[in-house]
Amino acid sequence: MSQSFAKNTFNQLKNKAEKAIHRGLDQHIKLAVTGLSGSGKTAFITALVKHLTSQADEKNLPFFDVIREKRHIATKIVPQQALTIPTFEYNKALNSLLPQEGEPHWPASTERINTLRLAIKYQSNAGLRGHFAPQSTLYVDIIDYPGEWLLDLPMLEQSFQTWCQQQYTLLTQTPRLHKAQLFLEALSNLDLNASVNESQLADIATQYQQLLKGLKKETKLAMLQPGRMLMPGELDGAPLLQFFPVAEVPDEIVVGSNLAHLKKRYDAYVKEVVKPFYAQHFRHFDRQIVLVDVLSALNEGTETLYEQSRVINQLLNHFNYGEAGFLKRLFKPKIDKLLFAANKSDHISAKHHKDLALLLDSVVHEQSNHLKFDGVQIETMAMSSITATQPRQIIEKGVMLDCIYGKPLGENEWLTYLPPQPPARLINKDEWPSKGFAFLSFSPLPSPDKRLNHIRLDHVMQYLLGDKLT
Amino acid sequence: MSQSFAKNTFNQLKNKAEKAIHRGLDQHIKLAVTGLSGSGKTAFITALVKHLTSQADEKNLPFFDVIREKRHIATKIVPQQALTIPTFEYNKALNSLLPQEGEPHWPASTERINTLRLAIKYQSNAGLRGHFAPQSTLYVDIIDYPGEWLLDLPMLEQSFQTWCQQQYTLLTQTPRLHKAQLFLEALSNLDLNASVNESQLADIATQYQQLLKGLKKETKLAMLQPGRMLMPGELDGAPLLQFFPVAEVPDEIVVGSNLAHLKKRYDAYVKEVVKPFYAQHFRHFDRQIVLVDVLSALNEGTETLYEQSRVINQLLNHFNYGEAGFLKRLFKPKIDKLLFAANKSDHISAKHHKDLALLLDSVVHEQSNHLKFDGVQIETMAMSSITATQPRQIIEKGVMLDCIYGKPLGENEWLTYLPPQPPARLINKDEWPSKGFAFLSFSPLPSPDKRLNHIRLDHVMQYLLGDKLT
Repeated sequence: MSQSFAKNTFNQLKNKAEKAIHRGLDQHIKLAVTGLSGSGKTAFITALVKHLTSQADEKNLPFFDVIREKRHIATKIVPQQALTIPTFEYNKALNSLLPQEGEPHWPASTERINTLRLAIKYQSNAGLRGHFAPQSTLYVDIIDYPGEWLLDLPMLEQSFQTWCQQQYTLLTQTPRLHKAQLFLEALSNLDLNASVNESQLADIATQYQQLLKGLKKETKLAMLQPGRMLMPGELDGAPLLQFFPVAEVPDEIVVGSNLAHLKKRYDAYVKEVVKPFYAQHFRHFDRQIVLVDVLSALNEGTETLYEQSRVINQLLNHFNYGEAGFLKRLFKPKIDKLLFAANKSDHISAKHHKDLALLLDSVVHEQSNHLKFDGVQIETMAMSSITATQPRQIIEKGVMLDCIYGKPLGENEWLTYLPPQPPARLINKDEWPSKGFAFLSFSPLPSPDKRLNHIRLDHVMQYLLGDKLT
Repeated sequence: MSQSFAKNTFNQLKNKAEKAIHRGLDQHIKLAVTGLSGSGKTAFITALVKHLTSQADEKNLPFFDVIREKRHIATKIVPQQALTIPTFEYNKALNSLLPQEGEPHWPASTERINTLRLAIKYQSNAGLRGHFAPQSTLYVDIIDYPGEWLLDLPMLEQSFQTWCQQQYTLLTQTPRLHKAQLFLEALSNLDLNASVNESQLADIATQYQQLLKGLKKETKLAMLQPGRMLMPGELDGAPLLQFFPVAEVPDEIVVGSNLAHLKKRYDAYVKEVVKPFYAQHFRHFDRQIVLVDVLSALNEGTETLYEQSRVINQLLNHFNYGEAGFLKRLFKPKIDKLLFAANKSDHISAKHHKDLALLLDSVVHEQSNHLKFDGVQIETMAMSSITATQPRQIIEKGVMLDCIYGKPLGENEWLTYLPPQPPARLINKDEWPSKGFAFLSFSPLPSPDKRLNHIRLDHVMQYLLGDKLT
């Protein structure tokens, strides 16, 4: 046996062993990205992929351990496993942020579920210590889905009666009452106990749908149910989307009546739409980031901010694995880390980022800081996936002002501007400034070097992925 | 015990007995309506509903037994059971055919599954003979779905290899070859054995999709697979729709290669899209009508007519319950009657209707009149759901000509015209008239009395529903 033959065989064996261990150490993680439309989901995913695939240096991502410790080898986009889910259009989104020519603009928001798989190749700490498995791969399936689907979650444990109580009450209060007039009028002409009149139900359902769409477009109100009415897709025109809340649902319902049909449709919606989403997708998520546009909610006023808070807290109850935790019983979700991120923190001065984080913390934990989230870590952060402004310090009358510089959305002129300070906690109506808040929105910054900039995206990466890359 | 009390009790008992028998005699039937887009599905369903609900008299429907025998009581639209399927928009379609003001026009074609439930109340023959159950109800669920979905059926038993052989061959032949140039060029630049390049696959798939869409728009070719590429709906952008036929698929495929991914997607399409349609819908159909636009196929030329014939015969093989009948094994479909209807027979002279029926018969039974359809009755008919022309007899040079009178589609002038005679069987290239065929299409006729007219729709009703209304 020649020496070289022996050496080859040894190398082959070594390769085999490495491959086997390599395979054993590979990990998979499903990261769900959600938030109401306009919260910056598409920009977040685009930034995450861009920084990992082409800006993964220590200077850019100092708080992401695998980068700081120089163990990151390479990240690339690889074919997704779920063939029935549309692919996240990364190149399209990147081209709109970093165009070859012309002005950059925010990518179009996606209104359906889509996905993208990253393979992060890295040197594990074990690899550094030991002799085998110098490389491991973490596969990250990023799943982007409309926040409205998440907000349907509470319907899973509400009867039609309970749901009506909640939703109808909302409709009769500020800020909905004014916009709900047409729907409420149409509803008042419906005899709930009469024999079903399908075309009347369809007409009123269309009015309710227009109401929800109007509220979504013109306000930042969060509790808009059923969520699929906002983007029905293939369910457009299906009876199970033709329901709406009524003032009161008696315990006894007349068989074959309008009310009986509304209840039947509500039940079908929960069973055929809400439940399958959780069964097919939600329960497979490992980690979840919820992007929250707190600044826009502040612009809208106190009711909107409080509604956002109520909705988030209602959701949190479903993650609460205590006695009431029905999600665990129903679906056994695997989510072990949940991050609420106040996005767009570049729209305020750097010294107020902490206020924004504290405000979000207070929005998330409205009632109590002592909710028990048995098995789920919950964190809040203020961040910016893609900074659209630059900090500028201006001295005015001897005082140094922390301003920001950028191009307001829809405007042609660049602006240096002193943004208002957000409150550091949920404030009530009496504390609310008389003129309200007016935070500006900005267009993305042009980037001659084709790099994206962020604020604390590395913290987010570390929180969501860091422990899987050790 | 007073006499009236006894009488009441007797009546109550009688009512109860009638109700019980009534319920026992009620029947349900699922009628599937299909055909390629443009074949007249929406017009057919609209006409069916209109004639049954408001024109159900003996003069109008003389060959529909339940009407002729004066046993039809009333038909109405009732709430559908399947809440997840969009409702057929009957009122919208009817308004476009019988508008309050303005010109009538054909209803927009629907490109997705939708449904509508009719309740036909009638006196059963048993009721006439006996003393009980004077009334029965037949519930008819009409399910309208794109013909393209039906045409995917053969994929269920084709491997990617077989499918490629068939489809690629078609692409290299007249009449597709010319239109397929761009796709074939893009395909020739793809290294099938190279490591998967997802964006290249997506680009070529987009070209293939454009090719299919172009063929659908500009020709009457029937075999366009995969059917969902023509109307992807929520699957738009999903990898399982990003495949296309290649020239040759070897038995051994390189793992992780472009080819491996194409095969994987084909398999996923069959498993996740084609199969669920048959499992959820197709196997529950009781009766099926396939509308065929034979005249347009004649206009297109010999290849198109022969392709239509091949496709129909390929479908028929799936209904053939003989030894090869895999559908029965797989899904046990309940279909016991299948009707192929050559629609738009009003576009030719009445004396040629029989030729049209014979031609369709020859299209359907290309190879043999002796196919065994164990358990399935198959029929062909020439009909017109909604007549768009009136017969006119013109004497020219002493000869009486059977002309038709109507307003050609897209024109403003009315026309009296002598339509060509269709061949009474599949003719081959040599027999084809040198100038081809040129049948006109017509706009719907205005109807001051808000009635629709038909040709042999009553025969169709009798064939599809008659035996259930005895």
